[in-house]
Amino acid sequence: MHHHSANLPLILRPKWVFVEGELREGLEVVVDGGQIAAIRPATGPLTHPDRALLPGLVNAHSHAFQRGLRGHVQWASGQDDFWSWRDRMYALADGLSPDGVEAVSALAFLEMALSGFTTVGEFHYVHHQPGGAPYDDPEELAHRVIRAARRVGLRIVLLRVAYARAGAGRPAEPRQRRFIDTGPDKVLRAVERLRAAHREDPWVSVGLAPHSVRAVPKDWLSAFVGFDGPLHMHVAEQPGELAQCRAEHGLEPLALLDSLGLVAPNFTAVHLTHPGEEDGARLVRGGGRVCVCPTTELDLGDGFFPVERLPGVPLCVGTDSHARIDPFAELRALENHSRARLGRRNVLSPPDAPDGLAARLWSIGAGEGSRALGLPGGELAPGAPADLVLIDLRGVSYAGARPLPAIVFAGQPRDVEALWVGGVPVIEGGDHPERARIVEDARRALSTIG
Amino acid sequence: MHHHSANLPLILRPKWVFVEGELREGLEVVVDGGQIAAIRPATGPLTHPDRALLPGLVNAHSHAFQRGLRGHVQWASGQDDFWSWRDRMYALADGLSPDGVEAVSALAFLEMALSGFTTVGEFHYVHHQPGGAPYDDPEELAHRVIRAARRVGLRIVLLRVAYARAGAGRPAEPRQRRFIDTGPDKVLRAVERLRAAHREDPWVSVGLAPHSVRAVPKDWLSAFVGFDGPLHMHVAEQPGELAQCRAEHGLEPLALLDSLGLVAPNFTAVHLTHPGEEDGARLVRGGGRVCVCPTTELDLGDGFFPVERLPGVPLCVGTDSHARIDPFAELRALENHSRARLGRRNVLSPPDAPDGLAARLWSIGAGEGSRALGLPGGELAPGAPADLVLIDLRGVSYAGARPLPAIVFAGQPRDVEALWVGGVPVIEGGDHPERARIVEDARRALSTIG
Repeated sequence: MHHHSANLPLILRPKWVFVEGELREGLEVVVDGGQIAAIRPATGPLTHPDRALLPGLVNAHSHAFQRGLRGHVQWASGQDDFWSWRDRMYALADGLSPDGVEAVSALAFLEMALSGFTTVGEFHYVHHQPGGAPYDDPEELAHRVIRAARRVGLRIVLLRVAYARAGAGRPAEPRQRRFIDTGPDKVLRAVERLRAAHREDPWVSVGLAPHSVRAVPKDWLSAFVGFDGPLHMHVAEQPGELAQCRAEHGLEPLALLDSLGLVAPNFTAVHLTHPGEEDGARLVRGGGRVCVCPTTELDLGDGFFPVERLPGVPLCVGTDSHARIDPFAELRALENHSRARLGRRNVLSPPDAPDGLAARLWSIGAGEGSRALGLPGGELAPGAPADLVLIDLRGVSYAGARPLPAIVFAGQPRDVEALWVGGVPVIEGGDHPERARIVEDARRALSTIG
Repeated sequence: MHHHSANLPLILRPKWVFVEGELREGLEVVVDGGQIAAIRPATGPLTHPDRALLPGLVNAHSHAFQRGLRGHVQWASGQDDFWSWRDRMYALADGLSPDGVEAVSALAFLEMALSGFTTVGEFHYVHHQPGGAPYDDPEELAHRVIRAARRVGLRIVLLRVAYARAGAGRPAEPRQRRFIDTGPDKVLRAVERLRAAHREDPWVSVGLAPHSVRAVPKDWLSAFVGFDGPLHMHVAEQPGELAQCRAEHGLEPLALLDSLGLVAPNFTAVHLTHPGEEDGARLVRGGGRVCVCPTTELDLGDGFFPVERLPGVPLCVGTDSHARIDPFAELRALENHSRARLGRRNVLSPPDAPDGLAARLWSIGAGEGSRALGLPGGELAPGAPADLVLIDLRGVSYAGARPLPAIVFAGQPRDVEALWVGGVPVIEGGDHPERARIVEDARRALSTIG
């Protein structure tokens, strides 16, 4: 499906290459066997004048099918909040066929690739048929989502969700039946089957995602301690979750997870919009991180991520519900929202270099996102996977501007000219060879569910 | 410089036309003599399938030359905030020649047109030579800014700034000498000369902008009461301004302006990030409005505009310092920042119709922006100026989405396919005929000032 083999060596000589936290001129990047073979002084003329080559961005938190909600859920009669939004999300989740899941996922992944993401962490929670019966292949929908990512060319980490209940002492609601499993062993066996099925594909790996303290009881969580691979969990997205967790467990969410031993280097707390006082220290000590999803957290009215309350905690980002898919918006929101809340500038970075702040934000998007998903790379360095994004700086918005801060603070998805995953070209000339068919398939799938 | 005369009648039959707060199908828009002559049932096939025609957006607050700061001011050694940012802005303001002002302004205006703005309100405060001596033509720089807008094809309202001092009892600092006048009569005479010089140009008008309570004393403000035309003023952007104003006048900024009689239908308070308790009532009673500039207010660390504290006050938006130029980002920020602050959705709109919220936001950008600048129009209706923007909905981000909410909540500058000002095409096929030359001129101007 792709134009080039990953095995042809490729030499890229853009004007700027992002290494060691800055854009440098006069370098070339050699790609071979899907990896970066060398970064060295240029041996010929520029191949990409006025372009910058950076490590591809990682979308560490995605629910791909929710892309189907775009434009349909900005309005609700009466009071509208996270919970009324969730009602409408459930209705979409209940209406999608396997073909629909695959088509809408491909649309979301296509927009990610066009916007600079090379990898997606798909927090996948729709497993069963409407009503709850398993598909003949119990991993049918997970395979469909993976196939959608492979059709686009994205690297995917399928984070297989564990979902047990509606809340403390409450069984799953009818509209949650597509999500639920009957025990943690069932979840872990699903992970093993998925890993076995995709073992040969270097673009695919599999992790585990206990949905939330709301949806997963303590004994399940204990069964997941020591899981070998990335472990992601929604934590403290809504204030209501804190009181429920205290009532059930006598602890707030992250304190509970830490007491069980889940806060470890493989752990990513998604959201943590409402952290407890000690949560920063727990994550620093345990080695976990937070995945912030600013555009979704604003769209849903969750709140602003209070970065200053979690000093030293690594961050990554995700586009979550796909109200928009724009990594530039997610990254700069981390800094810009903090500026407005705190009344000062350069919140995320001790300003020790002119491009230090912008470089830190890009590294949040690339390097820490990779670590969150248990992947190597996320930087331009010999031996790293050749997951690359080429930014076109010829546009009006870059004229006269300092390149790296302009990319991070004024960049847009349209600036992505080319993108490679494992050395394979996915986006060329700002376009994707399957674009029209993916869009048409998704349109058709979404038209059937109103 | 344009391809078509404004006098040729034009019939547009896009798939959707924005009328009465919604996108309607089956209509055509007839443009004649620079105005909308009719909106009526379509008399032929679509001229623009999968496109939506909406009223052009109004950038009600711009300092065009500050576009030259992009990417250069994200970093400062030591503590960084609004005031340290201002130091660097002053350095740019001090270094620009008339050619430089014109070139950088054209670059900013070009990016505005490409992004969906048909009109700019330029809050123009660099009047004199470095050192403070007037140019041979004392309105030299204002004419240059106007010429830049005309080169691009934008409608411009030049808001001629009055600037008297550094603060209460403090004369202008050396780097403010390009801004200052010696009396309010001088300012009003400059407005009159500008009006006379551009009387014949229907794309140009002139208003008045006392800079702020910091920079303008009470007797000047009194001299501006009853000004015939739009009157804009920076109000309560930074908390520090409130205490200074109380110390000098015993009142907070908007209370002072109201006590003098300046809060009236021609009045626009720019920012009002830190309103007093009665400020909403003052604006509702007086007939004024607020111009919010979310992306700049975040970039500078000013704060979030507290929309819920000003119920019933009309709003418009501006891109101010041009850290970015993206009207979609400014508009949705009004709602989305409020959601995160308040923990609920649909803050700006009683949800009485599926597209009510998105329609309200677009009308803030178009209609209220026009009223802020004393202009008719800002809507698609017979007799209104034909200031139009055509949005291309064929892109990946719109597939399967409800059009109007998707435009407002996921739209991007790249979606602007065409734009007309007074019936004259400015953007066609997403491009501008002068693009390359304007970019090159600005690059050259900015390279000379480091």
